[in-house]
Amino acid sequence: MEKAKEFIEREWFTITGQLFSLMKIESVSAKPELKKKMYEAADYWQVLLLDAGVDTAEVIETAGNPVTYGEKIIDPKAPTIMVYAHMDVMPAEPLNLWKYQPFEPREENGYILGRGANDDKGQSFIQLKAFEYLAKNNLLKVNVKFIIEGEEEVGSPSLAGFLEKHKDQLACDFILVSDTNMAGIDMPGITTGLRGLAYWEIEVKGPSHDLHSGIFGGAVANPANVLASMLANVHNADGAITIPGFYDKVRELSYEERAKINEATYNETDYKASLGVSALHGENGYSTLERTGIRPTFDICGIWSGYTGEGTKTVLPAVAKAKISSRLVPNQSYAEMAALVKDFFEQNMPEGVTVTVKDLHGGDPYECPADFVPLKAAEQALFKIFGKPAVHLRSGGSIPIISTFEKILGVKTLLIGFGLGSDAIHSPNENFSINNLKKGIESMIQFYIEYQQNIGK
Amino acid sequence: MEKAKEFIEREWFTITGQLFSLMKIESVSAKPELKKKMYEAADYWQVLLLDAGVDTAEVIETAGNPVTYGEKIIDPKAPTIMVYAHMDVMPAEPLNLWKYQPFEPREENGYILGRGANDDKGQSFIQLKAFEYLAKNNLLKVNVKFIIEGEEEVGSPSLAGFLEKHKDQLACDFILVSDTNMAGIDMPGITTGLRGLAYWEIEVKGPSHDLHSGIFGGAVANPANVLASMLANVHNADGAITIPGFYDKVRELSYEERAKINEATYNETDYKASLGVSALHGENGYSTLERTGIRPTFDICGIWSGYTGEGTKTVLPAVAKAKISSRLVPNQSYAEMAALVKDFFEQNMPEGVTVTVKDLHGGDPYECPADFVPLKAAEQALFKIFGKPAVHLRSGGSIPIISTFEKILGVKTLLIGFGLGSDAIHSPNENFSINNLKKGIESMIQFYIEYQQNIGK
Repeated sequence: MEKAKEFIEREWFTITGQLFSLMKIESVSAKPELKKKMYEAADYWQVLLLDAGVDTAEVIETAGNPVTYGEKIIDPKAPTIMVYAHMDVMPAEPLNLWKYQPFEPREENGYILGRGANDDKGQSFIQLKAFEYLAKNNLLKVNVKFIIEGEEEVGSPSLAGFLEKHKDQLACDFILVSDTNMAGIDMPGITTGLRGLAYWEIEVKGPSHDLHSGIFGGAVANPANVLASMLANVHNADGAITIPGFYDKVRELSYEERAKINEATYNETDYKASLGVSALHGENGYSTLERTGIRPTFDICGIWSGYTGEGTKTVLPAVAKAKISSRLVPNQSYAEMAALVKDFFEQNMPEGVTVTVKDLHGGDPYECPADFVPLKAAEQALFKIFGKPAVHLRSGGSIPIISTFEKILGVKTLLIGFGLGSDAIHSPNENFSINNLKKGIESMIQFYIEYQQNIGK
Repeated sequence: MEKAKEFIEREWFTITGQLFSLMKIESVSAKPELKKKMYEAADYWQVLLLDAGVDTAEVIETAGNPVTYGEKIIDPKAPTIMVYAHMDVMPAEPLNLWKYQPFEPREENGYILGRGANDDKGQSFIQLKAFEYLAKNNLLKVNVKFIIEGEEEVGSPSLAGFLEKHKDQLACDFILVSDTNMAGIDMPGITTGLRGLAYWEIEVKGPSHDLHSGIFGGAVANPANVLASMLANVHNADGAITIPGFYDKVRELSYEERAKINEATYNETDYKASLGVSALHGENGYSTLERTGIRPTFDICGIWSGYTGEGTKTVLPAVAKAKISSRLVPNQSYAEMAALVKDFFEQNMPEGVTVTVKDLHGGDPYECPADFVPLKAAEQALFKIFGKPAVHLRSGGSIPIISTFEKILGVKTLLIGFGLGSDAIHSPNENFSINNLKKGIESMIQFYIEYQQNIGK
């Protein structure tokens, strides 16, 4: 791998220069007013793919934000790997907690800093640059396709339609994604399970207008109090979810499977320190790795009602709202859970208020089979680069489109990520270790080599 | 009273012109950045008082916003009435719910519209204009002092200090205030009881930064979930407050007293319609008039945490906050309740978060004695103007400084208000009936006449 390493060092200014240019584009898919930034990002990806060595690249319209597609066809009869990544990022708010401007990336003390440093601009560069090395050195013996989408952070509402429409063009043997974490510092990981996601907005409406809390306080249901109370009812004292039927489809793992999950590196002291908490909290009877890997959740991501400015205002708010993310696990279905939650809130609303649950987006959980052919090549490659075996990870995060790929294209996905829990993705001061970026590129180059050998190419 | 009526009609353009000029001043005491507006309002009140006929008027500095003071001394040995009012108003947010700009007052269909139309700019004009009529027609036989303060809506933090400092100058026999409601349309009311107020901000801090709800969801206490749960625990299934000791000092009223409170006009259908709710909700075992008059409350005025923008963001928020107003009743003490609430939240915080309760302001509840001399004059005056007896009201609202007047100046307060529940004070589209404004001025003119006769002046 000396040649690969040399390539990375020689190209480093180009790699970071291109990555920073991409990170400077404020491609926040949750903000409709930034739609033209999505086109800017898509156009730039077309340039990046062509520069890396694809035969053709194009920006394709979807019902929502555009997708950038590129391909290099070595031999129409050879297997085809499709790399999936996303060009959109999470909103950067709250801005005041960033050390530097989120869309003015920089390199500092061995880290790349800025929104998208890891998720997924930084990690997508691992795939891009590994491909570039192989393509430019004529080492590719399989076909490679790229789809870079622009709605991952809002649940990929247009991707299923895009896949359906371009099914033939997108035919492939498996999907390759870098959008997950390693098992720890210098500990490679392959993510073999992903939680699903359901995202809801719950609205409690009471009086037709804000009321004076003195004149009317005590006589009417206060929507903020009602919302707090309904949300509190979702968990019992054991930290389990009380919504009827919520656990019915959850696959209970065997003792052996649970033991294997708990083999991953995990140091509670470090974990707590990295999060800045004095104690952990979760469902009784499960370890932290299980709580985040194989158990479903119901978390308030946002809540707002009434007066939130400086000082005091004595109002009974007319409306209270919350945004909820619920992580789902095999074999829960997003559509079924959405129906259960809607019923739980809408059927139990107290007199004097109306409660509405809006389904914002979601995706089913995913499990990768143990006999999946590319999994072996990944293990070989990561062992060669890191000198230790890759841990099979259960990620708490969701990439809802992985199950969509399976449904529409009929293929499984290999998830090899190079992030760390401390990368602060979705948070202020997102960062990505330069060492992991470089090792990631090396690993993916090695992956292609191992896979091509394994299948006799 | 024909002469008083003629005065009001002849002066109407001046009255509304001056009132609108006052309402145009954005004197929102909750917003420190508007401090210079408070000085503008104070200066304008000096002009208004001098124009109405006081001997002297001045703007006096306090530790916070200035107070405008004016006096007309008829005879140093005569009794002295001190009129109290406030020049500050509540924030106008949410602005998008106003039909017209909140600080661009107008008259429409028999109502004055705009922030402060009732509370307290409109109602303070009742006192100002009644005084003006009496002063200009040489009908005053008592001394009159005015204090117009600028921090009522934020709990009058500087008033006690001001009263202490100017105790001699402010000596008086009783305080006269128009900042409360009538018993209903054309139903005069005298407020003989006021609830106290305590206002807290509760903060739950968890992780040091916002976390990805997938990667970490299930493993850490989510501050928003914790806050919802702690707030939900404040009420039991009967709608009663569960904070230990909260009801210990509450004076339980006799059957007769409760019966008297329930004599006030109250039509549940109209009440619900005016609030836009399908059902009422409160503490079991008490009527709506009791729930708002003689029972304490714990209401969320504001709650906020995490992502509240458009679309979705899958974060576990690092911090969650709520603003709480608690209405207190005789003989609860604000300081004692503040201590109980602080303990309830801070002593019961779950592992993994820190909970802090900040005491923003408050005031004790107030009761007016049945043998209070000016009460009789008020009853006589209101009967003459409205043709029906005044109801003795228990207001759910709080004017925390009323108990401060008693403590520092040693005098009771007479509360005669001309507002209606539908005036939307503290809310968008605040309004004040022109008929009530005019009848209010007539009533207060008559009040002085009756009081002066009763005491043999």
